[in-house]
Amino acid sequence: MPDWSDSRIYAHYLIETAFPVEQAAETMAGEQSSGTFVRVPGETSELRARHAARVENIELLERVSSPSLPGSGIPAGQAGPPVYQRAKVLLSWPLDNLGPSLPNLMATVAGNLFELRAFSGLKLLDLRLPPAFLDAYPGPQFAVAGTRRLAGVEHLPLVGTIIKPSVGLTPEATAEMVRTLVGAGIDFIKDDELQCDGPHCPFEARVEAVMRVINDSASAAGKKAMFAFNVTGEVDQMKRRHDIVAAHGGNCVMVSLNGVGLAGLTALRRHSQVPIHAHRNGWGMFDRSPALGMSFVAWQKFWRVAGTDHIHVNGLRNKFCESDASVIASARECLTPMFDVPGKGCQIMPVFSSGQSAGRAFDTWRALGSADLIFACGGGIAAHPGGPAAGVRSVRQAWQAAMDGLTADEAAARHTELRQALEKFGR
Amino acid sequence: MPDWSDSRIYAHYLIETAFPVEQAAETMAGEQSSGTFVRVPGETSELRARHAARVENIELLERVSSPSLPGSGIPAGQAGPPVYQRAKVLLSWPLDNLGPSLPNLMATVAGNLFELRAFSGLKLLDLRLPPAFLDAYPGPQFAVAGTRRLAGVEHLPLVGTIIKPSVGLTPEATAEMVRTLVGAGIDFIKDDELQCDGPHCPFEARVEAVMRVINDSASAAGKKAMFAFNVTGEVDQMKRRHDIVAAHGGNCVMVSLNGVGLAGLTALRRHSQVPIHAHRNGWGMFDRSPALGMSFVAWQKFWRVAGTDHIHVNGLRNKFCESDASVIASARECLTPMFDVPGKGCQIMPVFSSGQSAGRAFDTWRALGSADLIFACGGGIAAHPGGPAAGVRSVRQAWQAAMDGLTADEAAARHTELRQALEKFGR
Repeated sequence: MPDWSDSRIYAHYLIETAFPVEQAAETMAGEQSSGTFVRVPGETSELRARHAARVENIELLERVSSPSLPGSGIPAGQAGPPVYQRAKVLLSWPLDNLGPSLPNLMATVAGNLFELRAFSGLKLLDLRLPPAFLDAYPGPQFAVAGTRRLAGVEHLPLVGTIIKPSVGLTPEATAEMVRTLVGAGIDFIKDDELQCDGPHCPFEARVEAVMRVINDSASAAGKKAMFAFNVTGEVDQMKRRHDIVAAHGGNCVMVSLNGVGLAGLTALRRHSQVPIHAHRNGWGMFDRSPALGMSFVAWQKFWRVAGTDHIHVNGLRNKFCESDASVIASARECLTPMFDVPGKGCQIMPVFSSGQSAGRAFDTWRALGSADLIFACGGGIAAHPGGPAAGVRSVRQAWQAAMDGLTADEAAARHTELRQALEKFGR
Repeated sequence: MPDWSDSRIYAHYLIETAFPVEQAAETMAGEQSSGTFVRVPGETSELRARHAARVENIELLERVSSPSLPGSGIPAGQAGPPVYQRAKVLLSWPLDNLGPSLPNLMATVAGNLFELRAFSGLKLLDLRLPPAFLDAYPGPQFAVAGTRRLAGVEHLPLVGTIIKPSVGLTPEATAEMVRTLVGAGIDFIKDDELQCDGPHCPFEARVEAVMRVINDSASAAGKKAMFAFNVTGEVDQMKRRHDIVAAHGGNCVMVSLNGVGLAGLTALRRHSQVPIHAHRNGWGMFDRSPALGMSFVAWQKFWRVAGTDHIHVNGLRNKFCESDASVIASARECLTPMFDVPGKGCQIMPVFSSGQSAGRAFDTWRALGSADLIFACGGGIAAHPGGPAAGVRSVRQAWQAAMDGLTADEAAARHTELRQALEKFGR
């Protein structure tokens, strides 16, 4: 990636091709800017000089004997079996081709590329955007500092959990669960992404019932738990649901990013008075193939500029197929500025979840070196031998100890709840 | 797929797993409805009976010795190397889990599934939705009949083309190109998906310049070409651009579906007075891997319900890596009702493009058996030996002949322009 001062758009790809790599890279650049399959009238040299995408760099990687994806072509007249060269390719575009528009950026850097016959593999790895995008988009409104302020959590991660079963509880049953969790001292609770506004648990009734519990508890304790209500829906629905949350004193809304899309998220962001908690469900479609799609690193940049405040990144030793290295790389990326503009780096809060409990705090802290995150545990809190309050305490004990440089064993010797958590849930 | 009378949501998947298939399928159903990794308090039998997703059918396919995707798990304690079973799995959900909401449908049928460790392959193949979605969404506004009416084309395909170079032309240069094309008798022209509202070709100036040409020509000829202006952007931008198009007498807007997302498209549809031409750029991310993502058949159903009128399907012997069989299956799907409700099947107009010219009409007609489509040619019109007007005529000659049951040779003997096209561009 080039330095910050440049005003072009940069996109980094992994490719695999049986064609000469330079030629394949030029095909990508041509297809996604001024070029066509054949040069046409009007495609002057001046126009090309001003608007053509550039191949900035090519880094050759390994060669393989079979194509990762079907349907790709091989050069005509080549002797012997085809060899597929993998490479990293950096392309750039003048911002003026599209202006600072995220939906048009998607069409430019991740549009008609993936089906090009020259490629048996093509994946967008990373992006760098010029700061003009900060003039066009507001970016995250609350991010780390604003979320900490609203949740009343100064330096530890927000200790969170998710309402389960995912779907099927009534508003009253949801509120009863919230009562237990709030009583246990939890910082953050979220709807499951499958729960939104079905007739068995209408959104407004759920907000009323849940916020009654949270508001009562907040008055008593002087600290208000953050509840991310799932507002996923059409633009008008999201705004209306947001307003219901705000009217009841709620302090967070959640959206399924792939369900609403970029224009939907931007519309919600421009309307929202509370943090936007982004669920990445469906992300595996983009990133699970090593040869196709879009890495989380590239993908999350679109949503950060559009204005999400939190995003899911899985957790260490999660129950999905994502590796620990990938989880940590994702979380680190969320905390890394996208722009070299003071206060406008669009950093957001990563959300750790899936199979998490107190013991995971030690490795997570060691790997990430930051506590600016939401640490969501399900069974790790609800099923703690000492009950949910002990579960919450165990997570706080673990994080504080890890940040103080203690090992899990040292910390367990000091804290009963943490010792119980380690015994039951492991590390 | 079950019959029409059922009110559940159905989703058909291709899976690949080293685990017993029934168990793997139950994992999908549980993860995407009432289940969790471990059974939790509140997950009563009654709740499960009402809200659990069901495994409706499993069809075993081949077994393979290596996993299609990395990261999947294998059963503990199994002797010998793992074997990966492929299968088609049909799941169903009660509509009440989510209500008729496309963004929440996405989270339900294509959410946190793709990273489940049980699977080394998982692809959504098809969907069936209950007609309640027709109460919540307007569906296509113009579709085939409305598009034909606006374009003044009764029974042949709309003969179309795309402005090239993709990006870089000024509004005036674009309008000059349109003048030539309209003079040639073209039915349909579209912006490239890379051209929207960059400073070198501002949207409003482009619409003014292009519509002046189209309106002048319409007054002269009594027939108005349809121009799909790319309005891709944020919701407010799309609405404003739509209004500019409508104010200048324009009759079509285009969006990049993956750029704007479902909520964005729905907002545009509810505002729009003209047909919405949907560009599927980026679709390869979802569908190019046989083992991951979402088929075009499933994917396009979301956008049809949301209200697109046209969608791109590539063309026969296209210059991308899509097979002819896939192109025809996609086009046929667009023309097939999604709901068994008279007049509300949400059929839309497929758009053929990429390397198309008159000669392709014969095989396209033979394979599809319908002319309810837009047939877009670039060089096949612009580079015709007799000029663009001859290019347009050659395409109409070919389609009329094909629909009359003539072979390409028989038709070429009757029509000079078609003979020239066949000689230059092939079939």
